Amino acid sequence: MKKICVINPNTSSLMTSNIDKIAKSVASNNTKIFSINPKFGPESIEGYYDEAFCIPGIISEIKDNPEYDAYIIACFDDTGLDACRTITEKPVFGIGEASYHAANMLGGHFSVITTLKRSIPALKKNLKNYGLYDNCVSLSSVDIPVLELESNLNLTEQKIEEKIKEVLDNSDTEIFVLGCAGMADFAAKMQKKHNIPVIEGISVAVKFAESFVDLNLKTSSRNSFAMPRSKKFTGIFKNFEV
Amino acid sequence: MKKICVINPNTSSLMTSNIDKIAKSVASNNTKIFSINPKFGPESIEGYYDEAFCIPGIISEIKDNPEYDAYIIACFDDTGLDACRTITEKPVFGIGEASYHAANMLGGHFSVITTLKRSIPALKKNLKNYGLYDNCVSLSSVDIPVLELESNLNLTEQKIEEKIKEVLDNSDTEIFVLGCAGMADFAAKMQKKHNIPVIEGISVAVKFAESFVDLNLKTSSRNSFAMPRSKKFTGIFKNFEV
Amino acid sequence: MKKICVINPNTSSLMTSNIDKIAKSVASNNTKIFSINPKFGPESIEGYYDEAFCIPGIISEIKDNPEYDAYIIACFDDTGLDACRTITEKPVFGIGEASYHAANMLGGHFSVITTLKRSIPALKKNLKNYGLYDNCVSLSSVDIPVLELESNLNLTEQKIEEKIKEVLDNSDTEIFVLGCAGMADFAAKMQKKHNIPVIEGISVAVKFAESFVDLNLKTSSRNSFAMPRSKKFTGIFKNFEV
Amino acid sequence: MKKICVINPNTSSLMTSNIDKIAKSVASNNTKIFSINPKFGPESIEGYYDEAFCIPGIISEIKDNPEYDAYIIACFDDTGLDACRTITEKPVFGIGEASYHAANMLGGHFSVITTLKRSIPALKKNLKNYGLYDNCVSLSSVDIPVLELESNLNLTEQKIEEKIKEVLDNSDTEIFVLGCAGMADFAAKMQKKHNIPVIEGISVAVKFAESFVDLNLKTSSRNSFAMPRSKKFTGIFKNFEV
Amino acid sequence: MKKICVINPNTSSLMTSNIDKIAKSVASNNTKIFSINPKFGPESIEGYYDEAFCIPGIISEIKDNPEYDAYIIACFDDTGLDACRTITEKPVFGIGEASYHAANMLGGHFSVITTLKRSIPALKKNLKNYGLYDNCVSLSSVDIPVLELESNLNLTEQKIEEKIKEVLDNSDTEIFVLGCAGMADFAAKMQKKHNIPVIEGISVAVKFAESFVDLNLKTSSRNSFAMPRSKKFTGIFKNFEV
Amino acid sequence: MKKICVINPNTSSLMTSNIDKIAKSVASNNTKIFSINPKFGPESIEGYYDEAFCIPGIISEIKDNPEYDAYIIACFDDTGLDACRTITEKPVFGIGEASYHAANMLGGHFSVITTLKRSIPALKKNLKNYGLYDNCVSLSSVDIPVLELESNLNLTEQKIEEKIKEVLDNSDTEIFVLGCAGMADFAAKMQKKHNIPVIEGISVAVKFAESFVDLNLKTSSRNSFAMPRSKKFTGIFKNFEV
Repeated sequence: MKKICVINPNTSSLMTSNIDKIAKSVASNNTKIFSINPKFGPESIEGYYDEAFCIPGIISEIKDNPEYDAYIIACFDDTGLDACRTITEKPVFGIGEASYHAANMLGGHFSVITTLKRSIPALKKNLKNYGLYDNCVSLSSVDIPVLELESNLNLTEQKIEEKIKEVLDNSDTEIFVLGCAGMADFAAKMQKKHNIPVIEGISVAVKFAESFVDLNLKTSSRNSFAMPRSKKFTGIFKNFEV
Repeated sequence: MKKICVINPNTSSLMTSNIDKIAKSVASNNTKIFSINPKFGPESIEGYYDEAFCIPGIISEIKDNPEYDAYIIACFDDTGLDACRTITEKPVFGIGEASYHAANMLGGHFSVITTLKRSIPALKKNLKNYGLYDNCVSLSSVDIPVLELESNLNLTEQKIEEKIKEVLDNSDTEIFVLGCAGMADFAAKMQKKHNIPVIEGISVAVKFAESFVDLNLKTSSRNSFAMPRSKKFTGIFKNFEV
Repeated sequence: MKKICVINPNTSSLMTSNIDKIAKSVASNNTKIFSINPKFGPESIEGYYDEAFCIPGIISEIKDNPEYDAYIIACFDDTGLDACRTITEKPVFGIGEASYHAANMLGGHFSVITTLKRSIPALKKNLKNYGLYDNCVSLSSVDIPVLELESNLNLTEQKIEEKIKEVLDNSDTEIFVLGCAGMADFAAKMQKKHNIPVIEGISVAVKFAESFVDLNLKTSSRNSFAMPRSKKFTGIFKNFEV
Repeated sequence: MKKICVINPNTSSLMTSNIDKIAKSVASNNTKIFSINPKFGPESIEGYYDEAFCIPGIISEIKDNPEYDAYIIACFDDTGLDACRTITEKPVFGIGEASYHAANMLGGHFSVITTLKRSIPALKKNLKNYGLYDNCVSLSSVDIPVLELESNLNLTEQKIEEKIKEVLDNSDTEIFVLGCAGMADFAAKMQKKHNIPVIEGISVAVKFAESFVDLNLKTSSRNSFAMPRSKKFTGIFKNFEV
Repeated sequence: MKKICVINPNTSSLMTSNIDKIAKSVASNNTKIFSINPKFGPESIEGYYDEAFCIPGIISEIKDNPEYDAYIIACFDDTGLDACRTITEKPVFGIGEASYHAANMLGGHFSVITTLKRSIPALKKNLKNYGLYDNCVSLSSVDIPVLELESNLNLTEQKIEEKIKEVLDNSDTEIFVLGCAGMADFAAKMQKKHNIPVIEGISVAVKFAESFVDLNLKTSSRNSFAMPRSKKFTGIFKNFEV
Repeated sequence: MKKICVINPNTSSLMTSNIDKIAKSVASNNTKIFSINPKFGPESIEGYYDEAFCIPGIISEIKDNPEYDAYIIACFDDTGLDACRTITEKPVFGIGEASYHAANMLGGHFSVITTLKRSIPALKKNLKNYGLYDNCVSLSSVDIPVLELESNLNLTEQKIEEKIKEVLDNSDTEIFVLGCAGMADFAAKMQKKHNIPVIEGISVAVKFAESFVDLNLKTSSRNSFAMPRSKKFTGIFKNFEV
């Protein structure tokens, strides 16, 4: 039995339960999915500021739930990925990272559609850091805030569809990547409708997590991913001392 | 029930049966592994010339075995990957490509150990094409021909170990990737011995293949991966006409 | 007397004779041009699948005609270039590669116009591999299949002209490269009409081949371009054993 | 009168007072330096984990001290730089970033000497993100923990000197960058001794901060650096709600 | 007292006096600005040819005025920067280089607006050389010759404004850089009007020069920036012998 | 009859006559070689300072000798190449540029051996600008000043040979490029002795020049290579006014 912990970095429990549904829908029979969100932090992640405040909560969840075989950070910005990889040897996946690697194994020239324009530079930095920016045809946004994606599903679907059409008309993109956990519901539908692979990161990350657990592949504990050095932490972070 | 076809591009049946053993050892219960090799072509793949002559045989196997849900090209050079992706919408994986993407999700700074020095420039071209060359710390070789890897297991193990030590001493590599299907047997042992992730591509590709089948993710059929255009093929390739 | 072998990777003899005409028109007096096409394989090269099946035929021609001083692969995809470079120490040129290097010595910011959109990603991969993608302003297509280029010369000319105008209007391109042997006839005319260098690869490759023969420059036989290692080849490739 | 706030992301007040000394030693007469450290968080920053926990404290200091004209994050990892740039329009400098840009204006080919090997991948990511990795000749470490730099000044000086000699012997580096606020004391001495520019980030950042204040240059408030969107923050981060 | 020499590489004394005004307007109280232009050479710098002929004049001014603490080359092409750095150990700044580095410390994604389209490839080469091309959103021109910028200020302002609007409408640029000393007058106005940082290189270079003088940071005299080797110079360059 | 003008940017007439000998030895029967050097400027080119002072002399020679069909700048730094390309539509070649492009058509992974270490950063900048730096295995120097190369041929040969052996022992280089016109004499000998292609730029440039003349390929006159704009030049450059 594999146990995978999916962490929604947003504190929105509605979003967490939606993520849980998606993760469970693709999990194998012998995989137990446990979806949670930090007990403190921002309600949604929309830019560099929110990113900074969701990481301690993510780390807190990993520390409080050490028994899992793999962890997934269900935010397309892959927030806190490096830090989390130092506190557990279990594999940790970001849904952005997982999506980009999957896209490259399905052809290559992919386009990302995310929520807000302000998040695009952060995604671009990640893509450059992973080495995959050259294979990215376009980065665009539907301009709907994260928490509104699920409150008006019709609008979300309509905007994603408009953007897909616009990108198909103006580029030779071969694959789409939906750049927010909140868009996951529309991947299969869009894939069928437009006859083009549409990747959604939660489901890909769950399958990659199962794969690495089965293969006994864990994060490197060398060098930058070695356990944090022991030292004093003070104030609200006192408990995070290692 | 998922059915995955693992194609050893070499015509060496001994190697095929070894690949089969590895693939089956990691496959899920509801996955059927079928390992084959082309009926014609070079006995082993060691450089650009051999690469050219194994591709038609690989394509032939995919065409003759259309009922599989995914295909794996079990040569670390990822030979023929693009061509194969045009003739089936089922996902096709190269074990080199799968290894590199896995390495990037386990930390990043990886070193590749392959068979012969002459293969290194081809691997470098692939890494640059995938975008992952910047994350590669070193590319080195044990200088043992492909078919001899399995005929003298002691020597192979000793040489891999020597190379791992040499790379660890001279760099900050965080992960190793074994760059030939024939080295797969040693991954787990080396991982344990040196306490560092050691990736072997066959097993990773099997799990990624299972993942994509479960997720209904198929190769893009747009643009460069569209079905080949219909035209006349002559001579020994007459049968490959589409 | 220099002897240059121009290999049209397509099996279309009409195209071969056209290529021969162009090659002869630029050859020096003391150069003998011999243009051939493989005896087997696809009629035209339009994408990854066709590429895979023209390489053995190209290699076959080089092996059957060892007396030449240089070889030219007259397909803009530079198909099989690396493999061919391992079986002869004589210089081997791809017309794509030759065109790009020429463009960089005439100013730099060049635009490629090729046949079909599906071929663009393969050209992009080559350009990245050669290091020259950054200097490429645009890659576009006239959307005419290879074999139709010559069957409707008026349409071909009109489409090339339209594309040249479009690129000039929308970019600061300084040079054009015609990305298919079948477009070669129009280079001089377009160059004159639009007062901008228009490069056609066959003629450039012929002159570069003459140059390297005169200079006694041969392909490196080190490392990745060393002679293929001796091994068993079976089936339809039995004869390619070295 | 310009007012510059220098934030030591470590909670070590000894280090803060040393940073303050350095900052004041280079400040102009009409500049008031105010050096502080977060009231909570890790005692020193050594890797991804510590980085994550110093950012809220840095942000807290900027919010509590809004009257300054510029802010400096005195950690060579440039931790939290993007997040801080969204909450104030005043310019914010990282001492790593400032050092690299200065090095490029003094010649270019620079070598970085930092504290611990584990920090090197994070610096490499920053350099790639800024675009300046290509100009970096080497990244190496003295292997002394941050807080020990100042407790054994003799050892620190000796190790920095050894590393400088080693880099000069093995490369054509033209400039050195000391990669930790705790090394700042040795820059001038090493510069004189080895007759090569040795950059220390605190002093550079102070002068760049004065410069931007004088020029009325502020962080862009467009796109990724726009003010954070208003939303609910919970738990220990309740007060960071905007 | 710091003494900074600002060299306008154009021989236009009207432009020199305008540059002087801008430099003096931002200089600190204890900085003496001395603005000059070469006594020979082209009246304005518009492309590679003019660039070649302004460098000896710039060098001449540095040699004739050795008492300054820093030198600024007030041409956005950063003409002659490397050569000047070999003949004085005092820091030398190009206004293009200074602008790009400043832009990267204010956010990152910047757009350059220069005079003539023909200068864009030279700027692109510089940006690639500095490593900052990836962070450049767009390079465009107002299509006004350098010397006309100041003869018709209304037109210049109108064209800059049009271009700013066009770039804002079509990209996510976060910062503007005005790419000619002759445009400097409009930076503050445009910054205010469009509420986005607008960088002008003369003023940035003056502040960076003051900074480096205060910090005792000088150009590396190692390797490529070592003093020129002594040798015979003939003809009109006889006096430049070292 | 083709007429090619080879310009030695050094004012050393001994070197010019040696260059002339090499150029003539490879020229076709119907090619007339005319080798000259500027009438003023530095005796040899060793670094950025010397580079700046040879360009006006090179331009002067092109202007004074407009009847040639192609021009070659026989300095491995490719000094003044861009400027020269604006004043004549005839093709202009740098011997560095020509060498690198030739190396890439003979295999790819090349190593450059130049004169002095101080020249290496300038070569690296060129390679990055051309896009070919990634294919360069190493850049090293024999540490002999340009003019001494020919005064002590034995030492030069011995040092080149030592460096070739050192590079072969420590890398997988597949090709050598001799990085100074003064080393040209040793290319053929080293090629034979070490059984590896050794490229020398003068001869390559002569053949490329003949090729482009035969093909009627001229430098682009668009955009950055358009004729210089007409303007006043003063002082020693009065005659360079266009």
